[in-house]
Amino acid sequence: MRKKLQRLRRKLKQARDEIDSLLGTPHKVSPLAPERFPDLPVIRGVRFAAAAAGIKYQDRDDVMLAEIAPGSTLAGVFTRSSTRAAPVLDCQKKLAALKEGAADKAGFAIIVNSGNANAFTGAVGFEAVDKVTGAVGTALGIPQDHVFSASTGVIGEPLPFERVTVVIEQLKENLSPDAAEKAAHAIMTTDTFAKGASAEVEIGEKTVRIAGFAKGSGMIAPDMATMLVFIFTDAAVRQDILQEMLSRLNDTSFNCITVDSDTSTSDSLVLAATGASGVEIGDADSESGQQFSQALGKVMLDLAHQVVRDGEGATKFVEVAVTGADSNEDARKVAMAIANSPLVKTAVAGEDPNWGRIVMAIGKSGAKADRDRITIRFGEIIVAENGWVAPTYSEDAGARYMKNAEIVIGVDLGLGAGAARVWTCDLTRQYITINADYRS
Amino acid sequence: MRKKLQRLRRKLKQARDEIDSLLGTPHKVSPLAPERFPDLPVIRGVRFAAAAAGIKYQDRDDVMLAEIAPGSTLAGVFTRSSTRAAPVLDCQKKLAALKEGAADKAGFAIIVNSGNANAFTGAVGFEAVDKVTGAVGTALGIPQDHVFSASTGVIGEPLPFERVTVVIEQLKENLSPDAAEKAAHAIMTTDTFAKGASAEVEIGEKTVRIAGFAKGSGMIAPDMATMLVFIFTDAAVRQDILQEMLSRLNDTSFNCITVDSDTSTSDSLVLAATGASGVEIGDADSESGQQFSQALGKVMLDLAHQVVRDGEGATKFVEVAVTGADSNEDARKVAMAIANSPLVKTAVAGEDPNWGRIVMAIGKSGAKADRDRITIRFGEIIVAENGWVAPTYSEDAGARYMKNAEIVIGVDLGLGAGAARVWTCDLTRQYITINADYRS
Repeated sequence: MRKKLQRLRRKLKQARDEIDSLLGTPHKVSPLAPERFPDLPVIRGVRFAAAAAGIKYQDRDDVMLAEIAPGSTLAGVFTRSSTRAAPVLDCQKKLAALKEGAADKAGFAIIVNSGNANAFTGAVGFEAVDKVTGAVGTALGIPQDHVFSASTGVIGEPLPFERVTVVIEQLKENLSPDAAEKAAHAIMTTDTFAKGASAEVEIGEKTVRIAGFAKGSGMIAPDMATMLVFIFTDAAVRQDILQEMLSRLNDTSFNCITVDSDTSTSDSLVLAATGASGVEIGDADSESGQQFSQALGKVMLDLAHQVVRDGEGATKFVEVAVTGADSNEDARKVAMAIANSPLVKTAVAGEDPNWGRIVMAIGKSGAKADRDRITIRFGEIIVAENGWVAPTYSEDAGARYMKNAEIVIGVDLGLGAGAARVWTCDLTRQYITINADYRS
Repeated sequence: MRKKLQRLRRKLKQARDEIDSLLGTPHKVSPLAPERFPDLPVIRGVRFAAAAAGIKYQDRDDVMLAEIAPGSTLAGVFTRSSTRAAPVLDCQKKLAALKEGAADKAGFAIIVNSGNANAFTGAVGFEAVDKVTGAVGTALGIPQDHVFSASTGVIGEPLPFERVTVVIEQLKENLSPDAAEKAAHAIMTTDTFAKGASAEVEIGEKTVRIAGFAKGSGMIAPDMATMLVFIFTDAAVRQDILQEMLSRLNDTSFNCITVDSDTSTSDSLVLAATGASGVEIGDADSESGQQFSQALGKVMLDLAHQVVRDGEGATKFVEVAVTGADSNEDARKVAMAIANSPLVKTAVAGEDPNWGRIVMAIGKSGAKADRDRITIRFGEIIVAENGWVAPTYSEDAGARYMKNAEIVIGVDLGLGAGAARVWTCDLTRQYITINADYRS
């Protein structure tokens, strides 16, 4: 039997390797990806460029530069990790200075590299940020404290910053208003597709445009921003209003997604407003503020969903909608306990309508719950109610529903008005394949 | 290419199926299992029996009965889940009555079934517990409020209690002091081996014996007991002292293990002391209390480690030891964040010394941490210190270390005296295989 087993294992490995080489696994495009990158509108006042610096990846762009015109405002949200990467700490320091009203008429720049996170790299990490943002500032004539940076990739290895600084002139020469898609590609790591989204909104007979892109597919869990996201608009928005809107919308978009419950040390979300549309946006309560905020929220949620759709190894897009909780906070606890449960996520991967695991996740969430008031739904199908399986529920109907690529798990706790929605994906063998040897 | 892919996928499936049928996958024995079930000493005053009731499994024992002699005391710890199963709620009610000093000289019984958790089964769940514990009480002549029960397996399906009650006479006839191993086998679900442990301690020239067994391999995460565990001793221990010891030792054993961060609705840990050795144990501060407590702690930790060793799909046994934290609570937060991180666990599975993910997990834990004071060790190898990779660290040494079946991840936060140790296993494709179709 031992020999037979060895022979079979060889056969298995052969077949797997052939499939992998055919598909270019593990980086084949997620089955949940949109058909193509969207056509992003040009945002007046912003130019992009990308370049191949060979930081880790060969034969692909791995640095992107965004130049934002004088007179713009900028807001940001960053990971709360206590082991934040050097670029994140640098961005937070620069943003704090902006908040203190030090805004002047100088423009901004954002420089991002993939392949190396410049995280847990000691003092040389800060030196690298200083060299890179300094060189960008000099090249573009922008004060260094207006140059924001982000790095994504492996943790703990020094960033070879001279590979970045050496391409800055080239980036400057290639700056173009319609290179956002190229920029979106340059910041990808284990992503299987580039993520973009946009919106247009008519305010006072003028058009305001918003466009953004994101990267992220693993190490995604909420707690402030959860990946790299850069959004640009030609609206004119005061810095404090911009920051308030961004933070608030982040709570119901990027902070409501989870792929694997792991939080990156580098997550950054930056929003820049050039004002080039000539449309001034008031605070969140004003009519223009509401219109703008709604459009911005749409772009952010779209990008957040795309990150989940690119969840490592994902084959299902899952919305968890919790209602009837004692508070919104409790609803979020339950939603996150379900969305992060390996047992729920593997059941979804196996198309198994195993609602018992949802009961388990509710139970462990720490939120107030009364077993006999819980209602569980798969889409429109009532699965369980009154503390037991629903009399109308059929396992066949549940199993059929689980075959969908997009699944909604609904939970009503029957206690109060607290509600929350979060989004996640399934947990598959492919997640393990990607993460068991990412570095080597 | 499409055709070729289909052909290859068929070949892959064939090879996998053949391997599975050869091995009886996924229930082949964990590579981390002990060589064999230990020889458990007879605990005077306790008798066991097992029977095949056909609740879900065919051709194997799935019910076990333990009869505990009159004059015994009993303590228990149970899951904190808010969706606790009916047997758990019943045990808690009965235990509360014992604590109120209602202890009399009647014996106890414990009846356990596998294959069905009798959880989230509405009112019929309590009826089933009532029928089963009532029938055991009648058969053994023990008051029903001294009959404890546990059920483990699928959630949400009614327990076919008559299949249990019908074998109670048979169980009674087969009661034997040395059938603990059979009992340990009867309570298994996805376990790949039965788990037993024992200790003997000389107290005042007499021998006290402790023996126990456990089941559990998935849905394991701390928060009180985390699986089914039954421990028996012939020491004489007052109920309040027994309970206090059990609760305290639980905090450093079963509450310090995690396989997948999911908490069961059924977890129960029960300890019974018959007093048949004639050795009276004082409180935890007395000499006899300390001796007994130490031996009991050893048995509990041994069983807890065995549960991790049987973690679904596990190929590595991982200890996470955190020191230098601001508080013990902070140390535990960091240890659990590392032990529950899918990215850390997949790296261990891939034998990848990816310490950057440990930095990430420390960062997301919520515990106080200063990047530049953190020291990370793999076994004796210093990997990172002073906010960066250690100058003496070589990736080769790290990679060699990760090939061990038993791995110690050490983290010193450099802040205070807080410490914690937890145990976990790696996250492998096999975990997904087991859990993506447990029910079907």
